[in-house]
Amino acid sequence: MEPLQQHNIAVLLLSLATLLGAAKVLGELAHRLRQPAVLGELLAGILLGPTVFGTIAPEANAFLFPQEGPSAFALTTITGLAVTLFLMVAGLEVDLSNVWRKGWVGLKVGVASVIIPFAAGFFAAWNLPSFFGAQPAVDPLLFALFLAVAMSISALPVIVKTLLDVNLFRSDFGVVVVSAAIFNDLVGWIVFAVVLGLSDNVADISNSITLTVTLALSFVLFVFTAGRKLIHRILPYVQAYTWWPGGEIGFVVILTLLGAAFTEWIGIHAIFGAFFIGMAVGDSPNLRRRSRYILDQFVSSVFSPIFFASIGLKVNFISHFDGTLVLTVLGIACACKLFGGMVGAKWGGMRHREALAVGFALNSRGAMEIILGLLALERGIIHQELFVALVITAILTSMMSGPMMQLILRPVRKVRLEDAFRSGLFLPALEADSMKGMIEEMAAVVGRILKGRLDPHSITRVHCAPEDVACAAIVNDVLLLAAGVDDITQPYVVTGISTSGVGLSFMDEQRAHVVFLILSPKNDPGIRGNMVAELSLLYQDPAMIEQTLQARSFTEFLALIRTSTVYLQKE
Amino acid sequence: MEPLQQHNIAVLLLSLATLLGAAKVLGELAHRLRQPAVLGELLAGILLGPTVFGTIAPEANAFLFPQEGPSAFALTTITGLAVTLFLMVAGLEVDLSNVWRKGWVGLKVGVASVIIPFAAGFFAAWNLPSFFGAQPAVDPLLFALFLAVAMSISALPVIVKTLLDVNLFRSDFGVVVVSAAIFNDLVGWIVFAVVLGLSDNVADISNSITLTVTLALSFVLFVFTAGRKLIHRILPYVQAYTWWPGGEIGFVVILTLLGAAFTEWIGIHAIFGAFFIGMAVGDSPNLRRRSRYILDQFVSSVFSPIFFASIGLKVNFISHFDGTLVLTVLGIACACKLFGGMVGAKWGGMRHREALAVGFALNSRGAMEIILGLLALERGIIHQELFVALVITAILTSMMSGPMMQLILRPVRKVRLEDAFRSGLFLPALEADSMKGMIEEMAAVVGRILKGRLDPHSITRVHCAPEDVACAAIVNDVLLLAAGVDDITQPYVVTGISTSGVGLSFMDEQRAHVVFLILSPKNDPGIRGNMVAELSLLYQDPAMIEQTLQARSFTEFLALIRTSTVYLQKE
Repeated sequence: MEPLQQHNIAVLLLSLATLLGAAKVLGELAHRLRQPAVLGELLAGILLGPTVFGTIAPEANAFLFPQEGPSAFALTTITGLAVTLFLMVAGLEVDLSNVWRKGWVGLKVGVASVIIPFAAGFFAAWNLPSFFGAQPAVDPLLFALFLAVAMSISALPVIVKTLLDVNLFRSDFGVVVVSAAIFNDLVGWIVFAVVLGLSDNVADISNSITLTVTLALSFVLFVFTAGRKLIHRILPYVQAYTWWPGGEIGFVVILTLLGAAFTEWIGIHAIFGAFFIGMAVGDSPNLRRRSRYILDQFVSSVFSPIFFASIGLKVNFISHFDGTLVLTVLGIACACKLFGGMVGAKWGGMRHREALAVGFALNSRGAMEIILGLLALERGIIHQELFVALVITAILTSMMSGPMMQLILRPVRKVRLEDAFRSGLFLPALEADSMKGMIEEMAAVVGRILKGRLDPHSITRVHCAPEDVACAAIVNDVLLLAAGVDDITQPYVVTGISTSGVGLSFMDEQRAHVVFLILSPKNDPGIRGNMVAELSLLYQDPAMIEQTLQARSFTEFLALIRTSTVYLQKE
Repeated sequence: MEPLQQHNIAVLLLSLATLLGAAKVLGELAHRLRQPAVLGELLAGILLGPTVFGTIAPEANAFLFPQEGPSAFALTTITGLAVTLFLMVAGLEVDLSNVWRKGWVGLKVGVASVIIPFAAGFFAAWNLPSFFGAQPAVDPLLFALFLAVAMSISALPVIVKTLLDVNLFRSDFGVVVVSAAIFNDLVGWIVFAVVLGLSDNVADISNSITLTVTLALSFVLFVFTAGRKLIHRILPYVQAYTWWPGGEIGFVVILTLLGAAFTEWIGIHAIFGAFFIGMAVGDSPNLRRRSRYILDQFVSSVFSPIFFASIGLKVNFISHFDGTLVLTVLGIACACKLFGGMVGAKWGGMRHREALAVGFALNSRGAMEIILGLLALERGIIHQELFVALVITAILTSMMSGPMMQLILRPVRKVRLEDAFRSGLFLPALEADSMKGMIEEMAAVVGRILKGRLDPHSITRVHCAPEDVACAAIVNDVLLLAAGVDDITQPYVVTGISTSGVGLSFMDEQRAHVVFLILSPKNDPGIRGNMVAELSLLYQDPAMIEQTLQARSFTEFLALIRTSTVYLQKE
């Protein structure tokens, strides 16, 4: 094989940059719309692939993302590495102890939400193989098993992020959902490994299918028993005697590569090894948070976006779009998962509304369904139409999950400090010199944002009633003022910077240089209380005040708040 | 091109795991011997490659590391990505503001330590091209320029790590060395980019060599002027409005890929773009430490070891070993760099001893020389014998750098807390119940380690003289005792855990459950003072005490200390 020529390398680097860039931009957009970032990343690939860019400008597309040749091969190598690392991190995030925290409820939900969609998927594919596009060369049993898994799997990483987003992750509801999802994923992946083992035609390594399946199940068993214990025992040695945290990170990656090599070698796929090793390592309380964080952040912000965007390059989502098939797959998937989740939740004794929400939560198929479909497509188990239907199902079920939980359970959305800051509420040069003048000046900008719905004087008037105002002057000249206001529905924080300082009282000479005016709905004193607490914590660090005084724009100020260590540790 | 078959993927994953595993183990070993980890990583590759493993077991070697075919191609793709990311991180570490901190001294050293080796390398290669193995197809000017660069470059990442290791990084000496090394690297890489531009025969993109060189220099100029400013301006937007720190990490990697694509496209090499973009991004004070840390840790602990180990796979270091050539290259390299560094340092007004140490510090060529040689080998500018000579020069110059600085300047080696803990000094179950009995019990184990050189009673006797003993009982039942002792040359910390607790005084009922006895040489009270301070800080966190009480072995205890956040933030 010829080595990559300079031209190929340049194109490869450019296509990686384009994929990553588009994935990050659309991922951010999805996040803004309170959707999982993976949806934006997938969309980036669909836009850059044959579906859109390839149709509009086929030549430019073929130049940047060649379908064959050394650049295409190199890109496949890198995305292959990326998905392996993604599944390692997905495995790390699985907290097996969660499964037992809610005792039998989670398990009941898990069992019901696997069995019902599994049976439905199997039944549908077994009876109507040609409708779902079973390939003639593929054993009908295999095809039916695949669709069964595809209907019953859920996407733990996406579910966790959605629960965090709707502020239900730490609730009892969240624990049930997560433990059920872990059960779904575990069963789903093991069965899928068996399916791939059955489909394996490589006769030179393992002569019999039984051997592959036996090896796969033995691997899972080994990893979760002796392997898990061994890792747990070895980790302290790695931490005590190797460079930290590099040694631990290296150790986890080496184990992942070995596991991936083994599962690939026995005829299933590298990602299983990576996923199960990730789970076994992540399960050890000895794995330090810092290593976990570095692995997660690097892989999630570089490799996963590249992988998910690259999926869109493989298929034309318009020409392979089969409406009936998409609706059928989506219908079966949603109906069975909702029903399965509800049955399990009722069986576990949950109330009706919560049971419905459990169904929607588990229905989220995101990343996992897509990876599953991709492997099946590459092995020739399914055709492109079914792959497109699975991807669309994954996207739509993930998109509806958060909003439906919100609608059914109406959880109190967590009010984040950073959302209360606004561009118009940052006053880099306060003019007032007196306390009263300053409060009026700061309240006026809120009034301007609310287009007259708020009377600035109403704030000035109330600012001394003790039940409405918390007024705390803290270290190093930061003044925090909080007031409950009638006319608003969400909190606003006005930030004022005064170079000359504002006098705090007649009694002493202390002057405030940074002033926060926190306004929140009058009937919700908790919000402003929390914000006062958060800001006090943040500004205990004298460096924060200095940097705040140096911020020349709202963007610089917001960047400072969002990236400060204290603020992050709270998350 | 055929896609990777299952068998190939399994082999690829296994070879990556083997490379990374061997590189980490030998890298740790090198680190233990107070040598740069990169030396161990290189050695791992030499052992696994044709030099050793390939000679002993050629078939197994060809199976694991095939020289051609899809697996070899995929490995090359991954190591290519790895070196690009390594140079990005190396660039991030460059602190350009350092160059100006010591004013003209650093610049004078930089200039002299570039010009003298450069002239000598050029002169030698120009006059004796056949001795150095100039390839007939290569322009003699080009070859002479290459050797000139190879003689004048130094390895900033290795130099920084060596300076940290001998505790000279923050000294005036360290600042001069680092600023001179930055100058060396900057000039060296720019000239080398021009050399590669001159060697470029790809006529379909840039017709003339002048164009390549002009584009390369314009790129550098742009990156360090407008590009640098632009990045500095954009970073706050990324921090304020994207997912943090993922958005920032993605942004840096995207820019790196774009820069790498550009420099590859104009006919030099991807790593230049990565390195210069890394420098420009790293130079912005707006880049947050957390993003820098994640990028650095992941790349340094996974990608760099894979890359450096992979170098050993390319060449047989024994069959291509030419003793005369190695000695000549090593001789010229050391003599000129030492002389250049000394001349520059004397010119800058440094003392004789320091000037000599500057020479040895800058002589360290480590990673950079090897990457340089590898590119030249791949482009056919040099033959394998010269490549081997360059690698050996890089290894030996890096190895001698730390010890020589140590020998010449005799800096006070920083005493690290973790080095004072020993396996035999961890007492998970103290028996004594009284203060006196406990001190005797703890001192006895030190006596045992020192084989009778220390009389336990001498510690008990002195423990009340205020100038020798610091005795602080701090929060949550941790007792710190420190004593100066005559008969020891390094500090020892005995850790005792008492389940029932040791009474602190007759006055109150507080009992200590974790006790540290810190012994250090009598004439160096600073050491024990620092250790008391560090341990106090560590144990302000109540979680630390709980975890210490749970540690069942010395390894678990040491792992706890080394991975605690407070301890790390101090580093």
